[in-house]
Amino acid sequence: MQAEREPGVPTGLFLRDRLWPQDEDTVARIVRSSGFFSSQELAVAVELVSERRRRGAASGYEFLFVESAGSSPEEPLTCAYCCYGEIACTEGSYDLYWIAVDQGHRSSGIGRWLLRELEAKIKRKNGRQIYIETSGRPQYEPTRRFYLACGFQHLASYPEFYGPGDAKEVYWKRLV
Amino acid sequence: MQAEREPGVPTGLFLRDRLWPQDEDTVARIVRSSGFFSSQELAVAVELVSERRRRGAASGYEFLFVESAGSSPEEPLTCAYCCYGEIACTEGSYDLYWIAVDQGHRSSGIGRWLLRELEAKIKRKNGRQIYIETSGRPQYEPTRRFYLACGFQHLASYPEFYGPGDAKEVYWKRLV
Repeated sequence: MQAEREPGVPTGLFLRDRLWPQDEDTVARIVRSSGFFSSQELAVAVELVSERRRRGAASGYEFLFVESAGSSPEEPLTCAYCCYGEIACTEGSYDLYWIAVDQGHRSSGIGRWLLRELEAKIKRKNGRQIYIETSGRPQYEPTRRFYLACGFQHLASYPEFYGPGDAKEVYWKRLV
Repeated sequence: MQAEREPGVPTGLFLRDRLWPQDEDTVARIVRSSGFFSSQELAVAVELVSERRRRGAASGYEFLFVESAGSSPEEPLTCAYCCYGEIACTEGSYDLYWIAVDQGHRSSGIGRWLLRELEAKIKRKNGRQIYIETSGRPQYEPTRRFYLACGFQHLASYPEFYGPGDAKEVYWKRLV
C-alpha cells in the first residue's frame, strides 16, 4: 500500500546490518559526499563504526546500510546508511544518530525508504519511539522538512546548543 | 559574596577531579545510598568511571568528587560526586550526566556547593551552558526542585522517554 503514496524505490537495492571491513571508509565517503558535515562530525561518524567493531552490541550502535547492485553485481555500492541504537536506561526509546545518503543517490527516495525500514526494524525490537536531533541552521532546512515529511514531530529546541546561533532541534515519532 | 546568600558548606570539604583506584566502589556506594536508582542505572554510573579510567579524556567523562575529612584526616570519605562532560560536536555545551550525594550527607548543602563549583569549573573551560536530564516521575520532584533552586530552567519534556509514563525532563543553565 505504501508504494502508492511513497516515491518509488530504485530496484536492485538491499539492506544489510552486519559491518563489512571497509565500512569506516564507506561511511566517510557517504558523509563527506553530502557536503553537510564538518571534519569533526565526519570523525564522529567514522568513530561510531569503529566503536561498534571494537565492542559489538555493547557499543549501543547499530547500523543499516543500503546496497545498490550498481554496475557490478559482485561489488555492490553502499549508497546510504543509518546508525541508531536503543538509548541507555530507557525501555524502547531509540536514537537515530546518523542518516546519510550518498550525493549521487539523493532525491531517489532511498533516505525515506531506509527510514521506513528502520522504523519497522525498531518496532520488531519492541521499540516505542525514535528520536532524531539536527541543527537549526538554515542549511539543515531540507533535513528538517525530510523528517516532518516522514511523519516525525518537532519535540524540542535547544538554543545555542551546537555553538553560538546554532540550535539543536529534536524530532520524534511514536511507533505504537 | 556567594557565602552570604547560599547555605553554608560544612568545613573540612575538598574537591578532587582525579580518579582514585576505588572510585567504582565509591560511586556504587553513593548512588546506591540514594535509593533512587535502578540496578541498571547504578551499573551505568559505575561504567562511566571505568570508561574514564580506560580511555582517559577521550572518554568525554569528567568527574568532581567531594571529600570530607570525616573522622580520619588520613582517610577522607567521598560524600558526593558528579560526572559531566562537553557534548561531542558542540562548542561549549556540557552535560551533567550524574550528580549524587551520599544519603548520610544529604540536606547539608553539599549538592548545591558541588553544582556551583562545577559551574565555575565549566566556565573556566569556556563552557557556555550546562544541560541536565532527569525523570518526570513524582519520586524525582525534589531533584527537579533542586535544579530550579540552583538557577536551572526547564527546557523540554520528552513524554514516555524512559518508559511508559516516565518522561524525561531537561533543564539548562546559560553560563554567559
